[in-house]
This record gives sequence, structure tokens and C-alpha cells, in this order.
Amino acid sequence: MTRAAEHERAHEDGRTHDHDHEHEYDVVVLGAGPVGENVVDRVRAAGLSAAVVEAELVGGECSYWACMPSKSLLRPAIVRSEARRVPGLRAHAYGPLDAHEVLAHRDSVVGDWKDDGQVEWVRSTGAQLYRGRGRLHGPRRVTVEGPEGDRHVLTARHAVAVCTGSRPVLPDLPGLAGARPWTSREATSSRRVPERLVVVGGGVVGAEMATAWQALGSRVTLLVRGDGLLPRMEPFAGEHVAAALAERGADVRTRVAVSAVVRDGSTGPVSVVLADGDVVEGDEVLFATGRRPRTEDIGLETVGLEPGSWLPVDDSLRVEGHDWLYAVGDVNQRALLTHQGKYQARIAGAAIAARAGGAGAEDGAAWSPHRATADHAAVPQVVFTDPEVAAVGLSLAAAEAAGHRVTAVDLDLTSVVGAGLYAQGYRGRARMVVDADREVVLGVTFVGPGIGELLHSATVAVAGEVPIARLWHAVPSYPTLSEAWLRLLEAYRDGAGAS
Amino acid sequence: MTRAAEHERAHEDGRTHDHDHEHEYDVVVLGAGPVGENVVDRVRAAGLSAAVVEAELVGGECSYWACMPSKSLLRPAIVRSEARRVPGLRAHAYGPLDAHEVLAHRDSVVGDWKDDGQVEWVRSTGAQLYRGRGRLHGPRRVTVEGPEGDRHVLTARHAVAVCTGSRPVLPDLPGLAGARPWTSREATSSRRVPERLVVVGGGVVGAEMATAWQALGSRVTLLVRGDGLLPRMEPFAGEHVAAALAERGADVRTRVAVSAVVRDGSTGPVSVVLADGDVVEGDEVLFATGRRPRTEDIGLETVGLEPGSWLPVDDSLRVEGHDWLYAVGDVNQRALLTHQGKYQARIAGAAIAARAGGAGAEDGAAWSPHRATADHAAVPQVVFTDPEVAAVGLSLAAAEAAGHRVTAVDLDLTSVVGAGLYAQGYRGRARMVVDADREVVLGVTFVGPGIGELLHSATVAVAGEVPIARLWHAVPSYPTLSEAWLRLLEAYRDGAGAS
Repeated sequence: MTRAAEHERAHEDGRTHDHDHEHEYDVVVLGAGPVGENVVDRVRAAGLSAAVVEAELVGGECSYWACMPSKSLLRPAIVRSEARRVPGLRAHAYGPLDAHEVLAHRDSVVGDWKDDGQVEWVRSTGAQLYRGRGRLHGPRRVTVEGPEGDRHVLTARHAVAVCTGSRPVLPDLPGLAGARPWTSREATSSRRVPERLVVVGGGVVGAEMATAWQALGSRVTLLVRGDGLLPRMEPFAGEHVAAALAERGADVRTRVAVSAVVRDGSTGPVSVVLADGDVVEGDEVLFATGRRPRTEDIGLETVGLEPGSWLPVDDSLRVEGHDWLYAVGDVNQRALLTHQGKYQARIAGAAIAARAGGAGAEDGAAWSPHRATADHAAVPQVVFTDPEVAAVGLSLAAAEAAGHRVTAVDLDLTSVVGAGLYAQGYRGRARMVVDADREVVLGVTFVGPGIGELLHSATVAVAGEVPIARLWHAVPSYPTLSEAWLRLLEAYRDGAGAS
Repeated sequence: MTRAAEHERAHEDGRTHDHDHEHEYDVVVLGAGPVGENVVDRVRAAGLSAAVVEAELVGGECSYWACMPSKSLLRPAIVRSEARRVPGLRAHAYGPLDAHEVLAHRDSVVGDWKDDGQVEWVRSTGAQLYRGRGRLHGPRRVTVEGPEGDRHVLTARHAVAVCTGSRPVLPDLPGLAGARPWTSREATSSRRVPERLVVVGGGVVGAEMATAWQALGSRVTLLVRGDGLLPRMEPFAGEHVAAALAERGADVRTRVAVSAVVRDGSTGPVSVVLADGDVVEGDEVLFATGRRPRTEDIGLETVGLEPGSWLPVDDSLRVEGHDWLYAVGDVNQRALLTHQGKYQARIAGAAIAARAGGAGAEDGAAWSPHRATADHAAVPQVVFTDPEVAAVGLSLAAAEAAGHRVTAVDLDLTSVVGAGLYAQGYRGRARMVVDADREVVLGVTFVGPGIGELLHSATVAVAGEVPIARLWHAVPSYPTLSEAWLRLLEAYRDGAGAS
């Protein structure tokens, strides 16, 4: 029987609703977010049959409660700021955003939280979609409990890929459970602009949501445990974002710990009690305090793994000790970013297909189509705050910690002519971290208006290991922000160290 | 005597105002625009003495009558369009731009056409600035006629670099001289918004100035001789720009020839007579019909070259047959772009310094610091129209004409999730041209809102000759426009040809 025919048979079987119906596929994927979808896409393209199991909306967190709604909320805020920074338009840009219009657009971006389009896409790949809770049931076997009590047992000939993602962590604080705190889900889906919003956490979610709701009209208090915002990035990134939030009226407090949360009744305000005794009052409180893997109820215990744990993998995204088990995207904790999970999914799908093709079909070299090498060297991230932050590769601290001999150069972006033309009173900064032995770029960080799309130039340079000597021939078009590259190369050539 | 001491002597000599005073420098540069300034910078950094001769404003065309003022006029137009394309703000962005504020900002960007800051920068390099008309006077010699009748004779020990740039060409048309047409200079420096502006020419200057003045309130008629706008780029680029101009009310006419221009009196309107007999009336007419080299009066005849001609050079920017003569920037006709001229200036300065250091100090390999290899392979350009156009390297037609075995893939940018989040109703397109033998990118063209800063990613890929297989590891950050890269790579992988 051909693979396509096998798939068809499985597909037919899948339509039955008998209990404990058995089906066999080449690949079974747990979770139909962007990561699971990309695994399916790649193994189907290789001619393997595939099933994908999803208990919630097909399309995943990113489509409904993360990247997409958050960016739809942030983009108007960013454009309003840009309009304020050009002559001839700023007089029109000091009014408030029309929050009703912004929130309605957000609703349409998330498809009103319906997944019809995504379901259709999955079906178009020829994969079988199972709605319900999927759980491992020993090696290569997955059980699905459907919404109507139906139960399926899926057997994977080649691989099971866990792509169940992550969920927000709420800290264990007195009063928190009863205070109905926002997590990233509520912060991206709220249909009301709270008059006062308290944000706990200074990572990407906290910084972005503080920016969005401030622009939509909330008075924001941002409470950060550490020294500053965006702690995994170069320190100047968070400094710029914090300063901008504060200038627009946010109360940004660093080195504060929350000790309790009190909500008075069902509609009353919420009080956030700090360890120093201070109390911050708001109408809503968002906890953006990290994420944990969605692996607590997927049957990990049936294959000797710890429920609720992250699933470490090798560069082919395979779980050590289980030659049939892959963990792709957030669950492996390599990089909790949609685009990096999709990258891993392409790699994992290709590796699964190559291994299914027999010995010797797989390429184990770094940067091969079967190795997620960029996870170590070239993870990009754009933070849609105002100013934007964009970084790829290693920060100076990370590069030094990794043992590289490093030269870093800093740049005040006001020295870039294109910056002054982009926005009056432009403020921004960049840092380039160079491997002094190999003379290649290990990492770049930009902060400033309009630098989001500039990041990919750095991503190509880092992932491409383009030598500094060759980067001199990559001429930035004048007068764009990209001339920052020229200034960074000059600073490196002239031996100006990072400050 | 050390080079520094020699320079000091020359510097002292330069302060005298006797007639026919003789001075000697390692390098003499004709023209103190951005290109001349960069030659000076590089040879001074190498310890050579240098003089630079300028008859007009130090800083050049770009600073006063080209890139800088044009971008200062265009940026508000672009931001207004972006504001119209996001929810929550658009109601405020339908009013006209405050033209007075925009023009005042433009005046400040060009420093009110004063060059004090630029002069100070030249002096800070330790180079001697001569104000006046510089002309070659036989090999290695340059005469300068100063503004007060003073005359200097400069001898160059190592090199003379001609960096005199280009000027607009006006066609030889009946009535044109008396009609006081705008060239790029007037179009970027006008202090009045004409009610009706006729633009002749569909290249970059014509397209950008039509965009700027339309946004500032002019009714624009754009007359193009050829089939479309931006003729050197992929055809879809000009099509998008023309459609956008027309949608906003411009009258865009292609395949038309102007046969005469008539201006009635000193304040009356101007009539542009077309070859088909039609007459277009305006309050001003801009001729953006190409450029010619500013070499007609620089003494080329004294070294056996043709006055007024372009000066072809080798990849070290040296004029063939004259081992001491360099032509850098627009004058060599390799790429009439400020940033590419500055690149050439860095290369030429390094080559001059290396050759001054004696045999063997120069690196003649492609992509070396002494060869302007990118001029052939990786010239970038951003056109600040609305939508923006950005291109680097070879177009499909140019790559085929150059004999490459080519695969090109096209992308409708509406398929990029980040595009829809960037602007509602996003329209744009991209093309990637791949060398099918070497599997490297030969050229990329983007057209669409917000793609200007994305270009440098393509420039790094093309100049860096990053293999397609490696570009798969350069992960675009989600959801930005840069995910266009992923879609282009997928189209290439899946064998989707350009349409």
C-alpha cells in the first residue's frame, strides 16, 4: 500500500465515532498551534500520513491570545507616536486613539476567536484533525478523548511530536486567585479599557501590554521585580522602553515585589500590596510573570517522563532516549517565540521525514535542514513597544558567558542621518557583539522607532556568519535607519568599545 | 618629514592668499559632497595629507538639494498614509498636511542651505579646504580659482580624486528655457506649494517628488515617456507606485512625449505641450529627466579626457590609463546614489592609501577592501514613495541579460501575516531572483508600505552571498514584514516561478 493510500484509509477510519477506534499514521502531532501546523505541513509534504490533535482552537495561542491580537493593539499606538514625530501631522496625533475601533479590529484579526479558517488549512494538507484531549499512552501511541465522549487510539509509525506550547504562570500569592487577574489571554482579548491597569512583570508581555493599554487610555502602573525591563536583552533596551512609558505618564517601579492582591467584591477595584507595604490600586491587574509548559496532562508519565516538565531535545528536536518522540516549540524551552517554534517545526518535520526514509537520509551537520542550529546562535525577537526593540543572537553578557572572545560596539542612533529624517527628536541605540576571533557578528540589538524591520538584516548576518570584512560591502541605502550598520562597522574598525 | 608634518606645512601654506601659490598634498579631491568627504576621511585616516576643493556648498547635492530635503518632505506623507491604514487613528489623518510646518522642517534639515557644520567636519579631519573652482592642469596638478580671485596650484603626490557628482539634464525643448522649469533642486527647495504641478519623468526623482507635492496639496500630473514608472526596477514596482498616485488623484500618463513648454509672463501658468497635441497646464513644471556628470569644466582636456563625459573606472575607482586619477561617485556612472558613492569613496580612499604604501599593499581580489565589487552585484536603493520601493542587486531582466541561469519567485505581500498587522488593506509585492547554479540570491525587490528598512536584509544576503540553504536558518521575527523572506524561500523550494 502506498503512503497516500494508507493515509486515505486512516482518514476514512477517522470519521467513525466508535469508542476506542484504532488508527495508524506515520506521524501524530499533539497541538495544532502554528508549531504543530508546521510539523504537519512538512511531514505531509514528504508524503507521510499525519494526524493532529487539538483540545482548543486550531491556530494556537499566537493566533488568538498572543502575537496577533497584541500586535493589532500595538500598531495603532506605534503609528500615533510616529505621527507625533513628523512635521505637518502631529497636530492631528495628540488626540486619544479610538479604542472602540482598535478593539473591533483586534476582534477581526483573531477571527472573533473562531478557527474555521485554520481548520480548513489543516484539512487542505490532507492531515486528519482530531478535536479533543490528546495523551501519550506508551511509546508511539496517543489517545484522544473527543468532546462527545468519543475515544480514539492513534498509533504513530514514525514519530509523535509534542507541540502543546506553554501557558502563563501565576505566582502563589495571597488573594490572587480571587482577584480575577489578567494573564496574557485577558490582556490581549479584553473588550474594555480599564481606567487603571496594574501590570506585574517587566518582560516582553508586560512591556508590550503596558504600552498598548496606555495608548488606549489606561493609566498604567508597571511593577518589575528586577532592575529593569526586558531582562534578557541588552540593558539599554529596557531602559529606553521604561523611560518612554514613564514620559507618557506610566508609573514604572523596578525592584519591587508583590506580596498580596485584594479584590473587593466582583466589580470593585483591585489592590496590589507590595512587599514594602505600599499598595497600588487598579481596575485590573495583569500578571505577566512567565510561562510554563503545557505538558501536565499529556500522558508523559506513560513514557517515563515527568508531567508538567519542559522537554529538553537535541538539535533535531528529538527527546533524548525516545527515538520516536519530538518536542517542538515552547515545550522544549529553547526559545518561547512563535517564529522560532515554526522554524523548529520545519526542522523537526524534515528530520522525521528523513529518518522515515531510512538510514543515511539525514544530515547531522550544523545548519543542515535537519538541525535547529539557529536556536543557539540566531534567535531574533522584535518587541513592539514604543520605541521598538529588536535583537538577534547573543547579548554581550551572553556572549561572554558562553566563552567567546568578544568585542562589542555601541551606537547612539541619533548619529544616523536617516534616524533624524525618520522622526524628529529620534532617540535610540544599537549594539553589535562581534566574535573577535572569527570576525563574525554574534548578536545585534536595536532600540528605537522603526527598527523592527531592520532586525532581519542582523539575523541574516548572524545566521549567515557573514564576515565583518564582507559586511562592509553590504551598503546601507541612504538615508534609512539601516545606515546604523555603517556606523557600527566604523566603530568596530576604529576600536570603539561598548560603554 | 613625517606625513603629518608635511600636511601641517601644506595647511599653513593654504592660508596665504598670494596668486598662484603652490601647495603639495598626498591627495587632492575635487568636490566636497559626501563622496569627496569620504575619500578625504579615509586617506586622512591612513595618514596621508589631503586637500579638497569645492565651488559650492560643502556637503554636496545630497545634503541640500536631493536625499535629505526630499526625504524630509516625503516622511510626513508616508506617515500620514500609515495613520490612515491603522484603526483608531485614521479619522485624524484625513486632513491635509500642514505644509508650512513641513517646509520649515525641510529648511532646518538642510541647515538653511548653509554649510558651516560640514566645513567644520572637513577641518576636523585635518584636510585643507579650498573654496573655489578646481580644475585639472595636467597630471597630478589642480588649479583652484578662489572667490576673491585668488589662485592656487595644488600638486598631488599620489592621487587626484574627481568627486564632482552630477547635475540634472534638461531636454532641448522649444520654450523650456524661458519657462523656468523646476529641476530636482527647485523641487526639493521650493518654499511654495504649487496648486498644480506637472512632473515630467517617471524615474526616482519624478516618482518621489510627485508623491511629496501631492501630499502637500498640489494637484499632480505625471508625464512618463516609457511604459511605466521606475523603469530600471522590476516592472511591478512602478505599477504599484503609479496606481497609488492615481488613486489619490494624480493624473499619471505613460508613453507620452513632451514637445514644447510655454510659460505666459513671469507669474502665469505653464503649459506643457505633448507630442499628440494635448496640453497640460500647471503652475510649475518639474523636469526629472536624468542627470549628466559635472565634468564639463574641470580641466579633463588637460589630461587627454573629454570634458563633460562620464569617467569610467576600474573596481578600485581608478580611471583607466591614468594611474593617479580616480573618479568616485556619480561621475563614474556606476551607480548614481549617495550611499553607493560613499561606498566607492571608502574603497577608493583605501586603495589610494594602500598604493601609496608601496607595491604589495593592495588587495586586488573581488570583495577586498580595495575593490568596489558591490557596484556590480549589490547596489541597494530605497524609493521613498507611498508605497515604498526597495531593491538590491539584479532585477530578473538584468540577471538574465547578464547570462545567469536564473530562478525568480514572486510573492503577494498580502499573504504575509505581519503585513496585515502593519496596515489594513496592505498591498505589496516582492520578487527574489536566485542564481540557480550557485543557489545564492542575485536580487530582491520589495514594494509596499514599511518595507524600506527590510531592504538591508536582502543587501546582506546578496553581498554576503549567503546560500539559500543557510537563509532558511535566518528566521524572520513574527509577525513582522520580514516573514516575506520565509514565503519567498517556500516559493523557491516549491518551484513556484515568477509571474
